[in-house]
Amino acid sequence: MYVSLKDVAERAGVSFQTASKVLNGNSAVVSAATRQRILDAARELGYVPNALARGLVRRDSLTVGILADDFSDVALSRFVVAAQQAIERQGHAALVTTTGQSSQAPLRTLQEHRVSGVLVIAPSLEEDDGIGEYLRGPLPAVTLNHIPGGGVPAVGSDHRQTGVLAAEHLLALGHRTVGTVTGPTGRRVVVSRLDGFRTTLAAAGVELPAHRIHPSGWEASDAAAATHHLLDADPGVTAIFVHNDNMAFGVLSALRARGVGVPDQLSVVGCDDAPLAEFAAPPLTTVRVPFEETGARAAELLLTRIRGEPIERKNLLPVELVVRESTAPPA
Amino acid sequence: MYVSLKDVAERAGVSFQTASKVLNGNSAVVSAATRQRILDAARELGYVPNALARGLVRRDSLTVGILADDFSDVALSRFVVAAQQAIERQGHAALVTTTGQSSQAPLRTLQEHRVSGVLVIAPSLEEDDGIGEYLRGPLPAVTLNHIPGGGVPAVGSDHRQTGVLAAEHLLALGHRTVGTVTGPTGRRVVVSRLDGFRTTLAAAGVELPAHRIHPSGWEASDAAAATHHLLDADPGVTAIFVHNDNMAFGVLSALRARGVGVPDQLSVVGCDDAPLAEFAAPPLTTVRVPFEETGARAAELLLTRIRGEPIERKNLLPVELVVRESTAPPA
Repeated sequence: MYVSLKDVAERAGVSFQTASKVLNGNSAVVSAATRQRILDAARELGYVPNALARGLVRRDSLTVGILADDFSDVALSRFVVAAQQAIERQGHAALVTTTGQSSQAPLRTLQEHRVSGVLVIAPSLEEDDGIGEYLRGPLPAVTLNHIPGGGVPAVGSDHRQTGVLAAEHLLALGHRTVGTVTGPTGRRVVVSRLDGFRTTLAAAGVELPAHRIHPSGWEASDAAAATHHLLDADPGVTAIFVHNDNMAFGVLSALRARGVGVPDQLSVVGCDDAPLAEFAAPPLTTVRVPFEETGARAAELLLTRIRGEPIERKNLLPVELVVRESTAPPA
Repeated sequence: MYVSLKDVAERAGVSFQTASKVLNGNSAVVSAATRQRILDAARELGYVPNALARGLVRRDSLTVGILADDFSDVALSRFVVAAQQAIERQGHAALVTTTGQSSQAPLRTLQEHRVSGVLVIAPSLEEDDGIGEYLRGPLPAVTLNHIPGGGVPAVGSDHRQTGVLAAEHLLALGHRTVGTVTGPTGRRVVVSRLDGFRTTLAAAGVELPAHRIHPSGWEASDAAAATHHLLDADPGVTAIFVHNDNMAFGVLSALRARGVGVPDQLSVVGCDDAPLAEFAAPPLTTVRVPFEETGARAAELLLTRIRGEPIERKNLLPVELVVRESTAPPA
């Protein structure tokens, strides 16, 4: 299926060793004419260097593993694509595996394929006790999410600041009775966003009592249900901070179903700045998360680490508020 | 970084050859005690078989290449994840490359890594003249999109039927003055969807003149602009068929901006059944495309082909109408 060095040597009428020397860039002892014959033969046959064979010799497979959660999710796919493209830009290739029931099968796949390092884009592994030991082992790793036990260099956006920016925006508009529909309880990103949000409100003398905090799954349908619970528990809420834009579509949908006008009766702030956020009804005010920059930076740091150079343990990228039409002063 | 066969042989106190025989499942001539010692040593050291070394011997790398367009797009990511997971379920791994300026660099990456086959999920390559020759070559390939020159086994949903179902639904509601915001002119999926739509309307005596057909890019913002052009050209249109749900968010947004009520004044039908379609305002009637089934089926067919077994040249998966609240009889 693939043209081998042996094929090229035969076509050029030289030994395997001679062809190998020339095509691996080590041709000082080969005559110019022979060298040209080998290069011509390689071109005619369509020979492509074998990264695997080179990898076995150098103990460097030029293959970087990505261990990701199901990235049909619009946020995760942006991380994965950006990381894959950064890896490819540096001449390497990405072997992509996804977490399923556990991290064991994909990790084994990565090991069997002798990846040079692993990039983790899998928030679900925050609760996987087995992964930490492996990622703190000899194989270079960089992660976008928390790893149990820590000790793995991480890249991410400033989740706490996301909550701070959402709170500051709502406070500046005059909101004093606010609620939040968060991601799943216990996730680091959720804890950080909630902490930034709550602390900023508290500093302005605004309370965030438990009955205005409604945890939800990451899907729009989960967030729609949480919105009904939130407004049933406290119909006086004038603004809701939602832990991602996908969920915000569910929140807006629930508010429409209840006949609550946005932003006239209630303001909504999301986070992510998903591609459809500006096409929500109304266009969604949100906190932009730098997905592309995060994925690319993580891949670059991993490649730096694979080369044996030191990298920062913690790399936080800034977030920014994007004001659209889903927020306004309270009625 | 990785435990080698040599490490295992040393720990077990046997020759490399003996360790290799046992760990490659060829241990008939090795005593039970020696065999156990080697297996114990492998377990203690955390030895994992080297798929690359096995691949070089067998000329089967167990690595399947995926050549995809940027899959931060929500539709493409569902294809890629489903394909990747189907490949992993069969014990193989997916090397993922993305098309950029051309298909040459990613194809070279796949060749260098000696993939056993290539799965193409890259609609942009419909216009890439170089790709066909490569994909009709010795490396097994399966594609989800049209390949110039044909001859590559393809898997996809029935795009023509998508247009038929959209037209039948609008006709059944009583619409006679309909328009369409299509994907980019010339793309096969666009031609097929438009043909099914137009033919079905024509059979019912309903014309689809050129000024009611507005090509657009695949993004919501493109479709919003096309919607304004369509309604400026013909304000009497009572229904619009849009070539994907992402674009439909742009269409709905443009209609809101013009103060056109959906579905009271105008009906909208999308296609894909994207995860957010039911959270559109109003919830979107659409034609469901079987993304997961298509990606998985394509990967399975490619693996079948890699094993040397025959597969169908053309594999069409059915689509189905999902009626929600964005369509109603004309006012």
